[in-house]
Amino acid sequence: MSQLKKSWVESANSADTPFPLNNLPYGVFSVGDEEPRCGVAIGNMILDMAAAEEAGLVEISDDPVFDVPFWNEVMELGSDAWATLRTRMEQLLGENSGEQEAVEPLLVAQADATMHMPFLVSEYTDFYAGKNHAFNVGTMFRGPENALPPNWLHIPIGYNGRASSVVVSGTDVRRPWGQLKGPNDEMPRFAPCARFDLELEMGAIIGQNTDGPITVQEADDAIFGYVLLNDWSARDIQAWEYQPLGPFQAKATATSISPWIVTKPALEPFRTSTPEREKDLLPYLTEPGPMLYDIDLEVTLTPEGKAESTIARTNYNQMYYSPAQQACHHTTSGCAMTVGDLLGSGTISGPTKDSRGSLLELSWGAKEPITLETGDERSFLEDGDTLTLKGAAKGDGYQIGFGDCSGMILPALDDPFKR
Amino acid sequence: MSQLKKSWVESANSADTPFPLNNLPYGVFSVGDEEPRCGVAIGNMILDMAAAEEAGLVEISDDPVFDVPFWNEVMELGSDAWATLRTRMEQLLGENSGEQEAVEPLLVAQADATMHMPFLVSEYTDFYAGKNHAFNVGTMFRGPENALPPNWLHIPIGYNGRASSVVVSGTDVRRPWGQLKGPNDEMPRFAPCARFDLELEMGAIIGQNTDGPITVQEADDAIFGYVLLNDWSARDIQAWEYQPLGPFQAKATATSISPWIVTKPALEPFRTSTPEREKDLLPYLTEPGPMLYDIDLEVTLTPEGKAESTIARTNYNQMYYSPAQQACHHTTSGCAMTVGDLLGSGTISGPTKDSRGSLLELSWGAKEPITLETGDERSFLEDGDTLTLKGAAKGDGYQIGFGDCSGMILPALDDPFKR
Repeated sequence: MSQLKKSWVESANSADTPFPLNNLPYGVFSVGDEEPRCGVAIGNMILDMAAAEEAGLVEISDDPVFDVPFWNEVMELGSDAWATLRTRMEQLLGENSGEQEAVEPLLVAQADATMHMPFLVSEYTDFYAGKNHAFNVGTMFRGPENALPPNWLHIPIGYNGRASSVVVSGTDVRRPWGQLKGPNDEMPRFAPCARFDLELEMGAIIGQNTDGPITVQEADDAIFGYVLLNDWSARDIQAWEYQPLGPFQAKATATSISPWIVTKPALEPFRTSTPEREKDLLPYLTEPGPMLYDIDLEVTLTPEGKAESTIARTNYNQMYYSPAQQACHHTTSGCAMTVGDLLGSGTISGPTKDSRGSLLELSWGAKEPITLETGDERSFLEDGDTLTLKGAAKGDGYQIGFGDCSGMILPALDDPFKR
Repeated sequence: MSQLKKSWVESANSADTPFPLNNLPYGVFSVGDEEPRCGVAIGNMILDMAAAEEAGLVEISDDPVFDVPFWNEVMELGSDAWATLRTRMEQLLGENSGEQEAVEPLLVAQADATMHMPFLVSEYTDFYAGKNHAFNVGTMFRGPENALPPNWLHIPIGYNGRASSVVVSGTDVRRPWGQLKGPNDEMPRFAPCARFDLELEMGAIIGQNTDGPITVQEADDAIFGYVLLNDWSARDIQAWEYQPLGPFQAKATATSISPWIVTKPALEPFRTSTPEREKDLLPYLTEPGPMLYDIDLEVTLTPEGKAESTIARTNYNQMYYSPAQQACHHTTSGCAMTVGDLLGSGTISGPTKDSRGSLLELSWGAKEPITLETGDERSFLEDGDTLTLKGAAKGDGYQIGFGDCSGMILPALDDPFKR
């Protein structure tokens, strides 16, 4: 197992920091009224990459690429430039840097910074590739014998989501209105969602433009990095709208992501294979190597003004399909992938009751409400609740953290059409 | 009924031209090796808008907006600027212009120009809002009693499509590979699509950024213009993949649009209401006025090296939901709309056999192949076929045409993963 790499930034050398030198994730930050720009997290600090570029400390392109509020331009430069950048950052911030004097003034305290969306989302696709989740949801709706749809073990099932819905952690999420219809109602009604839920997911960010089908290996190569992703879901809206063409407004209110893009090299020591196949995959979907990651995940819920409760713990290794398999399948029809495409993994649920990645599963469709450490009960999210996803790959004396992915639920508008 | 407005461009005064002064649609063109730029069609000519702006003939913004290969910047200026632009174009190109001498040298023959995508597609949503189509497809799969899903008369059903798939008319379309599984097959296989189809649709282009729910009236106001749209569909891929989360790779190969954006003012005389409701809509979806259009539509199929056959004739007025109703519903969850969003109407089929907007319906799932004028039979599209959509709103002695929306089917690749 790999070990902590030491930095001259002291806070980066703790076993508890999410951002040791091994990580070096990419975000977009601002301080006060300044323009948002690219930064790299190290310990409890951020290296201002626009300033570092301006000072001539980092140069990966003829034109400046860091004085913008997104990492898409870096992605566009290609994987050789990604590797060059990482090597350079390790030099600048490593304990034997020799350039500490020049770099140190360009550090900003994370406590003083506001984080923004780290990249421009070109398109957003959400998958359904966690088997426990698919089995749980299927069991609730169709019974355990017919829980998994017939295609599930052959296709990483996915649907196109809405890129305009993706927001950075810390953005409040307004409870949506929508068409609702109970099984015994004669007519639908237009009302605030009563079953607003989270979905614990990982997001893979595509860093290359592709045109036509790509192999699983090429898909893995095309991934720039990962974020935590909460695919907020209006279960009651979904139940009425989703047949026959899939979820639409149920998933369009918001999708929150963590603010730091954790890159593939940081996660390399934590690669793991997808689980054994229950049915052979078609050859185009077989993995040439381990393309999933061992990342501990946690969900917490904090009622307004109360203490935080952990409501689920699981691991990214519970996925049945890797993001590379998903991205490969995504291109089979000739569908072009674009720099900035975001692929949600699908809800990540473990096999046990306390490892389920949605309240729909945790409360078994509101039949078994969960009790928080505060004594409060929850079947679905209530106004004022703050929901937080946390994630970290655990090394020997260090971890690769993602930074929280949080959102607070605001009450529904009185009249959604009033400006 | 409105009448032809005369232009000093003689070819614009014919009853047969798709582009009289009444139309003035917006496209992006190039000649030879020149950079693509904005143009306006008039008769058989194109007014080079970049040159007109450069010459000081058109000014709707402090910064130039026409010397780019998309109309998004014009959309961003807002509806007052859209109106100013149209008025100015009518002045410049009207028969009593007085500026003919300055404008005439800036005209380019359409025959010499290559057309490009007229706008940058932000996101693409496809609806399922044609009742005859939904009934036909539902009847084939579930029988006439259960043809329409229970939500269909209450919700303009839609799903998110893939913006990267949208191409301009004239772009060849490669037959896709995908996972296929017949009802009696034990396992799926990965093979070229054998049931490749068209879908005759109209596309509405959103020209305003919105944040939060908008009313049907606001949605109508936010629409910049319309194009013809062919949502190429791989029926066999769709049949195996689409449960439970909707079509994915079946719709991601390509979506073709006609090259000219026909604006709302050009279509104003042809406004018509959606048909009588079979069930009352919820109040938020009711239309404050006619928001559909009377546009004749036609589909032709041309086998390679043979003559063109008309295979369907119908009208945009066959939709059950208007694009404004669709866009309103699209925002109910708080989903933000963005300049350049493209909304496909859903397949437009009339009530009769010869007015069906897809081969799936025309050949009734390959049970009743159609016979072309050349004697060839078709159940689905064959390699080398060219498929063309045509559309025109018919006024008194003039028409508002859209320009063809065409694509030729190329054979599937031998090995989709070979570069």
